[in-house]
Amino acid sequence: MTSRITATYHVTASAATIEARAQGIAVEQSVEMPLAAIDDERVLRDIVGQVQSITDLGNGVFEVNIGLAVETTGLEAGQLINMLYGNTSIQDDTVLWDATFPDEVFAAFKGPNVGIEGLREGKAPGRALTCAAIKPQGLPVPRLADLARRFAEAGPDFIKDDHGHADQAFSPYAERVPAIARAVREANARAGTSTRYLPSLNGNLDQIRAQIRLGHEEGLNTFMIAPMIAGFSNFHTVVRENPTTAFFTHPTMTGASRIAPALLHGKLFRLLGADAVIYTNHGGRFGFTRETCREIARYATMPWGGIKGALPVPAGGMTQDRVPEMVECYGADVVLLIGGGLLLARERLTEETRAFVEAVAALPAPPGPGAEARA
Amino acid sequence: MTSRITATYHVTASAATIEARAQGIAVEQSVEMPLAAIDDERVLRDIVGQVQSITDLGNGVFEVNIGLAVETTGLEAGQLINMLYGNTSIQDDTVLWDATFPDEVFAAFKGPNVGIEGLREGKAPGRALTCAAIKPQGLPVPRLADLARRFAEAGPDFIKDDHGHADQAFSPYAERVPAIARAVREANARAGTSTRYLPSLNGNLDQIRAQIRLGHEEGLNTFMIAPMIAGFSNFHTVVRENPTTAFFTHPTMTGASRIAPALLHGKLFRLLGADAVIYTNHGGRFGFTRETCREIARYATMPWGGIKGALPVPAGGMTQDRVPEMVECYGADVVLLIGGGLLLARERLTEETRAFVEAVAALPAPPGPGAEARA
Repeated sequence: MTSRITATYHVTASAATIEARAQGIAVEQSVEMPLAAIDDERVLRDIVGQVQSITDLGNGVFEVNIGLAVETTGLEAGQLINMLYGNTSIQDDTVLWDATFPDEVFAAFKGPNVGIEGLREGKAPGRALTCAAIKPQGLPVPRLADLARRFAEAGPDFIKDDHGHADQAFSPYAERVPAIARAVREANARAGTSTRYLPSLNGNLDQIRAQIRLGHEEGLNTFMIAPMIAGFSNFHTVVRENPTTAFFTHPTMTGASRIAPALLHGKLFRLLGADAVIYTNHGGRFGFTRETCREIARYATMPWGGIKGALPVPAGGMTQDRVPEMVECYGADVVLLIGGGLLLARERLTEETRAFVEAVAALPAPPGPGAEARA
Repeated sequence: MTSRITATYHVTASAATIEARAQGIAVEQSVEMPLAAIDDERVLRDIVGQVQSITDLGNGVFEVNIGLAVETTGLEAGQLINMLYGNTSIQDDTVLWDATFPDEVFAAFKGPNVGIEGLREGKAPGRALTCAAIKPQGLPVPRLADLARRFAEAGPDFIKDDHGHADQAFSPYAERVPAIARAVREANARAGTSTRYLPSLNGNLDQIRAQIRLGHEEGLNTFMIAPMIAGFSNFHTVVRENPTTAFFTHPTMTGASRIAPALLHGKLFRLLGADAVIYTNHGGRFGFTRETCREIARYATMPWGGIKGALPVPAGGMTQDRVPEMVECYGADVVLLIGGGLLLARERLTEETRAFVEAVAALPAPPGPGAEARA
């Protein structure tokens, strides 16, 4: 029997049309041609997508489960998303809502390198983790390094590049990253802290590899990457090529609604190897609801297919006054990322960052959304 | 003065909120932090996005033009889309509608290698071009090669892989592509025709490069690639590394509505080097209107920035009876792609394909949508 992925779509349709529409998706996401033109029994039996169920969710939306043959994915990351949603992404009536994978998919893609436990290593249990961001792009390298130093002196768990930092003339990667890495290293040595700096990877696969090499030479072992820009295949490739390195995913170009955020961040990015997934938190500059955000966190952290968990990193306009509420929402397995909110402190940046770090350290964290699935 | 790209967004907002919303996008797509926290005059002047205009389009939609500093893109393809739409793609109220580029962007990205004229070389002027597709995935290589032979005997201009063809065990690229290339080569030699076979590129940058090398060894000079899966940077890299090779883009994972199709296919893919852009035609399985489709074709073919034009390839459920209407819609500078519709002919596949090819050859084509901009 052929092994299948169950892909779940939410389809806007009428009761009279949903069966044909579901069958249409099953064909679109597999052989993409009229079945009447196929005379090969094996293709009809083992390759063509199969409608497994149709459920009326009300309000004109149906949940459709389709079994997609694993062998059509070639167990390759780009082809996986191509088969899950490629052409159907162009059809406005359909959202890719969820996916369930058989064991061979987990065995092939392998998930995070270090995962939640790796990122928490050496940290006090039961507390959330903290992250600051180096901005704005356009500043010269010495000023960015100085910002990093001032952040690092407050001892957050992570300091990340802005995702706008690429390889621009005003702060080339090869100058920026060593300077910031040194600033953070020296601050750690002075204060006995262990802040990790995450450079933002960018460009083609060769460039990303060179950036990782340079980071490794500077003692860095954590990077940020945008899978929708790097491409699924290239993201997965660099994760597997660097098995002791941690990767945070950035949500740029993920779009808002066509792929359910919990599936994209919590399952797909995790499956390919995200150790932590940055996404836009509720109540900031973006439209996700609290429920959607908890669902992302649940998917990212729940026991799943024997692969490691990924830390949720809710972000996008977060401020210090939201720390208690965010810890309440996410529990301890979360990275609280405050970007512009800390930079607004200007000359008091180190003090404000320290206040943030200490407030998080002092807050007992309840069980997170993944605990339910763990029970 | 700093050189800027004008990015055009369509934003759903109220008259009371649109100014703040426009300013919000200008910040999101540049420095992504509160301006009050920036003390560097150069960053404020040259790096922060600038709202250039706001126009009420009616029905609660505003057109917002924002000037984005070219230097933030680093003139690199992945960073270009990151700056054009990255985080804003996650905001449901905003569509990336259009973009206008200064000369240095065209000079850096360079556009198609061979373009419309290269793809038309040796073809009769004034007629549309034709393309068939090899499907379904799952067939063993000898059967795929036999299909290709039967298509090629009818002499279409192009035969493409299905976009589902990757590197699966049932027809690995390294076996499939040489077998199909040989079948097409031999049919061309017998009939004196010049059908080109386009393999579908997939996987990471290394794999795509190896696939192009293998294709070149088989005498192929045209390939299909999906930029949204390969990643913008990697797509642009392989185009520039192979300056005499032609590339068709495939629309898988382009989504339906968040980036205007004319901008994505007709401008962005063309800017990075698409010689031909496949998209979903009106009246097929997908929801684009005739107006949207003509706008894609107009953008792809119009004189623009001194780079070559790209051939529009409307597809997705096309049939032979639509040929006259499609030629009327698009003129001569179009590739008419019929996939499943020809495969339905089964044992009469060659005859039906020949009828398609001859019908297109006999049809005088009117000026296409790009002619307006040409005048």
